Amino acid sequence: MTIFDDLDSEVRSYSRMWPVVFDRAEGSRLFSEDGRPYLDFFAGAGALNYGHNNAFLKQALLDYIARDGVSHALDMFTVARRDFLQAFQDLVLTPRGLPYKTVFPGPGGANAVEAALKLARRVTGRQSVVSFTNSFHGMTLGALAVSGNRAKRAAAGVDLTLTTPMPYDGYPGIGESGPRHLDRLLSDGGSGLDRPAAIIVETVQGEGGLRSADADWLRDLVEVCTRHEVLLIVDDVQMGCGRTGSFFSFEDAGITPDMVCLSKSIGGFGLPLALTLIRSELDVWKPGDHSGTFRGVSGSFVTGAQALRSFWSDGTLEKSTRERGQRIAASLAAIAIEHPEAGLEVRGRGFAAGLRFATPGAARAVCVAAFEEGLLMETSGAAGDVVKLLPPLTISDDDLDEGLDIIRTCVGPVLARSK
Amino acid sequence: MTIFDDLDSEVRSYSRMWPVVFDRAEGSRLFSEDGRPYLDFFAGAGALNYGHNNAFLKQALLDYIARDGVSHALDMFTVARRDFLQAFQDLVLTPRGLPYKTVFPGPGGANAVEAALKLARRVTGRQSVVSFTNSFHGMTLGALAVSGNRAKRAAAGVDLTLTTPMPYDGYPGIGESGPRHLDRLLSDGGSGLDRPAAIIVETVQGEGGLRSADADWLRDLVEVCTRHEVLLIVDDVQMGCGRTGSFFSFEDAGITPDMVCLSKSIGGFGLPLALTLIRSELDVWKPGDHSGTFRGVSGSFVTGAQALRSFWSDGTLEKSTRERGQRIAASLAAIAIEHPEAGLEVRGRGFAAGLRFATPGAARAVCVAAFEEGLLMETSGAAGDVVKLLPPLTISDDDLDEGLDIIRTCVGPVLARSK
Amino acid sequence: MTIFDDLDSEVRSYSRMWPVVFDRAEGSRLFSEDGRPYLDFFAGAGALNYGHNNAFLKQALLDYIARDGVSHALDMFTVARRDFLQAFQDLVLTPRGLPYKTVFPGPGGANAVEAALKLARRVTGRQSVVSFTNSFHGMTLGALAVSGNRAKRAAAGVDLTLTTPMPYDGYPGIGESGPRHLDRLLSDGGSGLDRPAAIIVETVQGEGGLRSADADWLRDLVEVCTRHEVLLIVDDVQMGCGRTGSFFSFEDAGITPDMVCLSKSIGGFGLPLALTLIRSELDVWKPGDHSGTFRGVSGSFVTGAQALRSFWSDGTLEKSTRERGQRIAASLAAIAIEHPEAGLEVRGRGFAAGLRFATPGAARAVCVAAFEEGLLMETSGAAGDVVKLLPPLTISDDDLDEGLDIIRTCVGPVLARSK
Amino acid sequence: MTIFDDLDSEVRSYSRMWPVVFDRAEGSRLFSEDGRPYLDFFAGAGALNYGHNNAFLKQALLDYIARDGVSHALDMFTVARRDFLQAFQDLVLTPRGLPYKTVFPGPGGANAVEAALKLARRVTGRQSVVSFTNSFHGMTLGALAVSGNRAKRAAAGVDLTLTTPMPYDGYPGIGESGPRHLDRLLSDGGSGLDRPAAIIVETVQGEGGLRSADADWLRDLVEVCTRHEVLLIVDDVQMGCGRTGSFFSFEDAGITPDMVCLSKSIGGFGLPLALTLIRSELDVWKPGDHSGTFRGVSGSFVTGAQALRSFWSDGTLEKSTRERGQRIAASLAAIAIEHPEAGLEVRGRGFAAGLRFATPGAARAVCVAAFEEGLLMETSGAAGDVVKLLPPLTISDDDLDEGLDIIRTCVGPVLARSK
Repeated sequence: MTIFDDLDSEVRSYSRMWPVVFDRAEGSRLFSEDGRPYLDFFAGAGALNYGHNNAFLKQALLDYIARDGVSHALDMFTVARRDFLQAFQDLVLTPRGLPYKTVFPGPGGANAVEAALKLARRVTGRQSVVSFTNSFHGMTLGALAVSGNRAKRAAAGVDLTLTTPMPYDGYPGIGESGPRHLDRLLSDGGSGLDRPAAIIVETVQGEGGLRSADADWLRDLVEVCTRHEVLLIVDDVQMGCGRTGSFFSFEDAGITPDMVCLSKSIGGFGLPLALTLIRSELDVWKPGDHSGTFRGVSGSFVTGAQALRSFWSDGTLEKSTRERGQRIAASLAAIAIEHPEAGLEVRGRGFAAGLRFATPGAARAVCVAAFEEGLLMETSGAAGDVVKLLPPLTISDDDLDEGLDIIRTCVGPVLARSK
Repeated sequence: MTIFDDLDSEVRSYSRMWPVVFDRAEGSRLFSEDGRPYLDFFAGAGALNYGHNNAFLKQALLDYIARDGVSHALDMFTVARRDFLQAFQDLVLTPRGLPYKTVFPGPGGANAVEAALKLARRVTGRQSVVSFTNSFHGMTLGALAVSGNRAKRAAAGVDLTLTTPMPYDGYPGIGESGPRHLDRLLSDGGSGLDRPAAIIVETVQGEGGLRSADADWLRDLVEVCTRHEVLLIVDDVQMGCGRTGSFFSFEDAGITPDMVCLSKSIGGFGLPLALTLIRSELDVWKPGDHSGTFRGVSGSFVTGAQALRSFWSDGTLEKSTRERGQRIAASLAAIAIEHPEAGLEVRGRGFAAGLRFATPGAARAVCVAAFEEGLLMETSGAAGDVVKLLPPLTISDDDLDEGLDIIRTCVGPVLARSK
Repeated sequence: MTIFDDLDSEVRSYSRMWPVVFDRAEGSRLFSEDGRPYLDFFAGAGALNYGHNNAFLKQALLDYIARDGVSHALDMFTVARRDFLQAFQDLVLTPRGLPYKTVFPGPGGANAVEAALKLARRVTGRQSVVSFTNSFHGMTLGALAVSGNRAKRAAAGVDLTLTTPMPYDGYPGIGESGPRHLDRLLSDGGSGLDRPAAIIVETVQGEGGLRSADADWLRDLVEVCTRHEVLLIVDDVQMGCGRTGSFFSFEDAGITPDMVCLSKSIGGFGLPLALTLIRSELDVWKPGDHSGTFRGVSGSFVTGAQALRSFWSDGTLEKSTRERGQRIAASLAAIAIEHPEAGLEVRGRGFAAGLRFATPGAARAVCVAAFEEGLLMETSGAAGDVVKLLPPLTISDDDLDEGLDIIRTCVGPVLARSK
Repeated sequence: MTIFDDLDSEVRSYSRMWPVVFDRAEGSRLFSEDGRPYLDFFAGAGALNYGHNNAFLKQALLDYIARDGVSHALDMFTVARRDFLQAFQDLVLTPRGLPYKTVFPGPGGANAVEAALKLARRVTGRQSVVSFTNSFHGMTLGALAVSGNRAKRAAAGVDLTLTTPMPYDGYPGIGESGPRHLDRLLSDGGSGLDRPAAIIVETVQGEGGLRSADADWLRDLVEVCTRHEVLLIVDDVQMGCGRTGSFFSFEDAGITPDMVCLSKSIGGFGLPLALTLIRSELDVWKPGDHSGTFRGVSGSFVTGAQALRSFWSDGTLEKSTRERGQRIAASLAAIAIEHPEAGLEVRGRGFAAGLRFATPGAARAVCVAAFEEGLLMETSGAAGDVVKLLPPLTISDDDLDEGLDIIRTCVGPVLARSK
């Protein structure tokens, strides 16, 4: 691994837990260069909801490249862009009655967040934004400022201002719900909390320990936003594209955020794509107010459109995710029951699940043990105390069970060792 | 174009000047869906230095996808990543004796800038950064703060702080050079200019009107940075990868910046990739201090590595760019001489050239006229007063001459009309 | 009143509620120019704890001026400064065993706060500060940023950053105490609350509605500060100098803050003086790091020293304030009981008392009615819902009773009218 | 000096250069407690333009205190306030045709600056402010942010943002005048300089080395402000009240700033008073938007009004200051000529004069030597390279000559030693 040692910055992280060189991948499996298969409960941190190298997406991409489709086009009109927009309208927006226009804000999720914050500030004329404990929205300066992780914040090198964190659903120590508390502070002219431009929230905190917000909590939040004329941004970068069951993770709550951030699996194949959805009345932008080189990655449009057609033309995937999400939860619950003394906690929703360990180091130890058994999983949370399960939505039942079994097998010895 | 009207935000810009739907592309030509060819002097705003769908790059990409190479891998070790790093070391760093480590900061140029600023602040413990008039470094909050364009800055919705603009080389009204003036301010304990973490500079301002900095000016800037222990960041996102002749645009000046930002053409094929090069002694990062979903786009690694092997194994491309860059400059100078009363000004270096018009609106009118003749070019500069030529480095002599002829043909009538 | 109308900015406030021209004052009474006396339950917003023109202070001041004592001396050594420091050491610091050094930060309370924040940031190398709901610390930019009043914050014209408000003692909706909640957030690496340089707190919120913090709450806060190595600043500008009984308002809690801000009554006679007390180990300042023209107002030193000698040589004043403070509380409680349906709430401690009205406008109406009866009082709180009693500590029993009677007399009709 | 050593923070500065304890003062002399007289060319850093304990002012103050005039009154109407306003209108505003309303922003000059910045931001809706190299405007966070001194800025503990320094008149290295350069940057949409709320400037930089701005330069600055709709704030805290000859230092330039900051000598006797003058159309404040405890120091009003009546009822003082200011300049020029090899530079205007030494440490050495000869002067400038002469405007010719002689006597040996 000489070249990695020579050139790669110390900032690299995943290769530390998984010190092998991966080469190929298919469906729910990655293969290291020596041919060893690894079952993937990580799914590109949510960028591979449809698994690796799905045959339909792959073929569409190969065809597009082979026929010399435009590869790179900024925000020029292209056939690939049009097809994607059409599929997105026909299969996502229209069936759900959602009133959004689309912004392609740059290639990644942080761009989607930056664009949303920028527009919210412009529309409202206010600068500050409310975020939540244990949130994560990205690593560029604007997105990092609304993220909760102290270590990552500190790495900014500047004090991250204009944001105030509020307790997320279930955060301990609050005697009333977060939205109600926020309402109180915003209604109190002496609270010191300036009225923000926007509130940004994840429905399930993928990087923040798989905590999830109740539908009621989300509805209350919408009400607070409405009452105080604050915009609501749902960051669905990790939880969107079906991760929790429905296409958008907020559908179960029956709410319509003012803006929605999408990325990761929206490109379908793991290629960079990001999308900021904005209520049409918020589209006050002038041409070029937000720009960027990689806003029209045609390959991403091609696989993204194909993914919508392959997986969102009917309710099959959603139904499967909901049902099998319950199987995941049940399996984790069984592990928790198996070790009553360990105080394990099951978290998450759908195919975004977490198992929280009270014992420091245990979650990482489980991931390390699982890797040795050929299963890829990462930890989540600022304390790294949650084992995070993010299998491809397209995983077979057998593979899903195999992965869950490996986890169960690994937990016992880890807990035993840490006593 | 109904779907674009329906869904696309008003923020879109290129499709306004070029209201056709593009479909395919080859070499220096794009084709609209009705088959009309367009000669490309825009090159994806610098992301397509090697032209569209270059056969070698295309084949490497098709092979990789066909064999189910890992598509998406964050910062995991992959064969594709290793091959790219090896090619980058062998063909770029080692031959030039450059002491850098590599950070993959996210998919786009703004990520490369954000990571550089972040690290500079962390290493120095200082927060402010000096940038230059008419600079452009990206649209995320950190990168936008060091960008000069007032309209784009205003769109941030927050006051962009911690940065001070200084006059770029040739900026009018300064009686001494920018570096000397900066030195004076930094040496004067009463100047009000706090010692910054870093100075960020482009050697040619791609978005800022194609102004370019002399080699002496750059060397003086290095000296000022050294004297005051300030880090120098060269943003080579648009001017790197051979755009001005040498691989890095700062090579002619014989300087070694502390950090270098690369993106756009580093992926070769127009796929998203970004790279922040940092002096190895600056690599103080802890694992995960900077992260992101799209840091390991394997397709970009594959085409990026192939581009290095195809174009940077010897000096052919560099030589061609230098020689033909002079042809571009000569051709523009001839146009300027043809219209002595119009005060046209030729700008730029190598294959990044500009023709500045004193008459408001003339530059855009030339681009519009050129589009009608089948040539794609955009304007540059906050006032949009510069016609910007950014042809693929791989363009044939005939195509280059054709494009230059179209420009010459368009300038006369535009100037006549605007009298 | 022509000249006031002509010249005075619309920003003036007290003259709106009390539209008479005051001329002379003695003890607890002000006299308008037509000779009408007004009983003073306002006491210069806490700057006149020893009443108006106290004979001892007045004589000391007259003597000093008459003998041509230095009037203005910045931070030069003067006899007046030495005498004040000696009295402050002998009568305040030494008897209480307090380990402070003294900074004269400028003429007013905001200067004391600015200096404390500045030093806290310098010592810790951190920038952010935690303040509390309904706090008030001053109108300069640094002090305003830690103040809760939304209207006053908005008047800053800039977003006030680097501060986070936390719930003050008794703030509704919190299920655990503020210090405990703060501890939780600071212990949680994902909370989004960066570790601050300091926490700034008032023991009783003079401008924030006379809410007061329990001794336990304050002790818990000290513990949190200690655990997380955060400095504790007590802003005793309004509550210090005996307003709550003891010289410092935090003495009852048995705590020793890292810094204490004093102003208002520290000069004794209503002349500007401010003092920032800092633990000696925090005195890392270099000469001139903080400066200002009015740091050595000799008249303030003279009357300030005399006030210490006249009122703090023994425990008489403290005892009187404690005992008679209870009389004030009892009197207000009686009024509340008299109007059970009105939900009046008694607040405060010692000679800083408040009567909170649930009915909008009632508190101001009571103050207006009292003014007509010759009693000066202002409202407190962002909503102006609290009648604030701040009589001179030296008020006679008769005057105190007279004022309390007026209040009782005024409340009934106001409540009746507002039904 | 035990008590000073024990209690006084290390931040004290003047007492380091002048390690004696002052007691009394009269006219142009201070006396240490052992009776030694010191001639005062420091004048309370400009707070004592009328000398120490002027008999008229002193008597007015004694009378006011003796008759129990209200001492402290915030912004209540008082007889003392009315008399001051009347005198200010009759003797200052009306004769000069100035269209200002008055804000009493707090006790010191920094308050005057904070209020002006606050209002400028509110009126314009913009946040950033342009200041000048070597400016000084105060030590509170808002005022410090527009000050140039790097050491004092660093002591803030926070990065001072929202401000950009521009070259002051005569600042080396600029090929065009500061206002013209500013105009260029503000007219250039790519300059990176956001349009500010205000520009704040001193006509002579009292703390910044006695550099002064030409009348033309100031007029150009007004023109730039007008063209770009930016407010102009003149900070006349040190240079106002006749220091340069006319009451306001900007009168010679024939300009009318949008706001003017006054403090220091406006109280006449060295007592704290500050005043922000604002064009009446800028008075958009709501009651209480800006407040503070020490806005109505009656003693300051009394002596301030008396000073206006004693010194500004006719043109005697102004004439004397102008004429004798030239004597000061001539005397300093003679010293410079006496030491041609030393490159001394004479600076300033009227009774604000400076002698700049090229040799490091020389200016301070001259001040130390002068102190030994019984003359008080301080250095000015971030590098402390300027001896600053700020005698009382009321100094006798003999005293003035004595002081100038002492300076001349001290310079020779200092220069000889430093060879």
